[in-house]
Amino acid sequence: MTQLTLTALPNIPLIQCGDDLAAIIMRGLRDANLTLADGDILVVAQKIVSKAEGQMVRLRDVIPSPRAVELARECGKDARFCEVVLWDTREVLRVREGLIVVETKHGWVCANAGIDRSNVAPHREEEWVLRLPEDADRSARELQARLREQTSREVGIVIDDTHGRAWRNGAIGVAIGVAGLPAVEDLRGRADLFGYHLQVTTIGLADQIASAASLLQGQADEGRPIVHVRGVPHSGGDGAAREIVREKELDLFR
Amino acid sequence: MTQLTLTALPNIPLIQCGDDLAAIIMRGLRDANLTLADGDILVVAQKIVSKAEGQMVRLRDVIPSPRAVELARECGKDARFCEVVLWDTREVLRVREGLIVVETKHGWVCANAGIDRSNVAPHREEEWVLRLPEDADRSARELQARLREQTSREVGIVIDDTHGRAWRNGAIGVAIGVAGLPAVEDLRGRADLFGYHLQVTTIGLADQIASAASLLQGQADEGRPIVHVRGVPHSGGDGAAREIVREKELDLFR
Repeated sequence: MTQLTLTALPNIPLIQCGDDLAAIIMRGLRDANLTLADGDILVVAQKIVSKAEGQMVRLRDVIPSPRAVELARECGKDARFCEVVLWDTREVLRVREGLIVVETKHGWVCANAGIDRSNVAPHREEEWVLRLPEDADRSARELQARLREQTSREVGIVIDDTHGRAWRNGAIGVAIGVAGLPAVEDLRGRADLFGYHLQVTTIGLADQIASAASLLQGQADEGRPIVHVRGVPHSGGDGAAREIVREKELDLFR
Repeated sequence: MTQLTLTALPNIPLIQCGDDLAAIIMRGLRDANLTLADGDILVVAQKIVSKAEGQMVRLRDVIPSPRAVELARECGKDARFCEVVLWDTREVLRVREGLIVVETKHGWVCANAGIDRSNVAPHREEEWVLRLPEDADRSARELQARLREQTSREVGIVIDDTHGRAWRNGAIGVAIGVAGLPAVEDLRGRADLFGYHLQVTTIGLADQIASAASLLQGQADEGRPIVHVRGVPHSGGDGAAREIVREKELDLFR
């Protein structure tokens, strides 16, 4: 029987800068009575990776550039917040009241360059925002290596975020960092049940895993940032989320 | 412990026009030793819903219109195939060699109006294509009602397809028909861990479920079109996939 099991690891503490996510994952697995097996995947919310890597910025310390002030006027957001968005932006694609959609320096098309204001600050009196990891593929590879050291298992890592989309309402979980599995699965050359060539030729494997895990992670006060996934058929290897980034020249919808 | 379990139902036969999907699901559940519980979700591949509803078209019987002939010249596909695509198209959005992206009459932005050539024909000597269900929300509601009659359980139904996307490589599972759960979950008004308002305000619940199930369904010769999902937190109710369709006027990326 083909089965997929996703388990949100229990008792994950609030993450601070410098925290050891591999150690926290190991404790969470133990509390869930799970032993890692080769091929298992751990989906880790971008927020806790960013926090552990010290990507928090205190808005009080940010001096907005003229461009950020202009952007803030267009969208109605805090100019200091817009400044931080611009730090991580390659190109601003759309601006409306309450909305900034950009291509980030990592290649993601998303709102606010993936910078979060919610779920960040332990002290309400100070306003902090959280940037994406500098290189989430590297973060994923490092986490994979740490878990290999401790368990001798080859696991996959997906670092996920929640993005809005063109054409469809509702944000969904997507992968922004990947290690140990193909981020995009290539089916070209495979035939279907009747020997025809398949119409769909590449599958967003890591994105689908991120969306599945996102069903358990929740957005609000639940705090379940780490999900263990067992049963996804995949070939391992050295995939990376940068495979998912569609080159601008090949993108018909910019 | 918060856990999600997805099970691909075994022994699903090749579906023919007129087949009773509810009966086939009941047999599949029995073969998997699963008993339906309230809140369980069944994800059913669009292809088998379309086949059961008789949405197959034999290309030999199709006479392409001048517009289809023109479209075929632009994209290099069969003019009869293009004609069937146009039957289900509200607006052609992009055409390139080998690619037609349209808004379907149902509101979906996708390649070929969702019409499949692969995995359709039992006899290679004749070319058939498969259109989307006429109204996949209705198909989902009917399936939900049939399962309620047979089990007295309130289950959710997601009819899923595989769509390409803007900005990101790799197609993913998406919902095109929904019953018994919110297709888009509204989080507005909820606060995060620290009492801030959430940035992400609506979640593509049904799309995330579709992507999760798609991990088991596969695209090629596996033939696992029905996936049972247990453990998704949802509020039930009378959701529909049409909630997912973003109105053209609100879409910044057309």
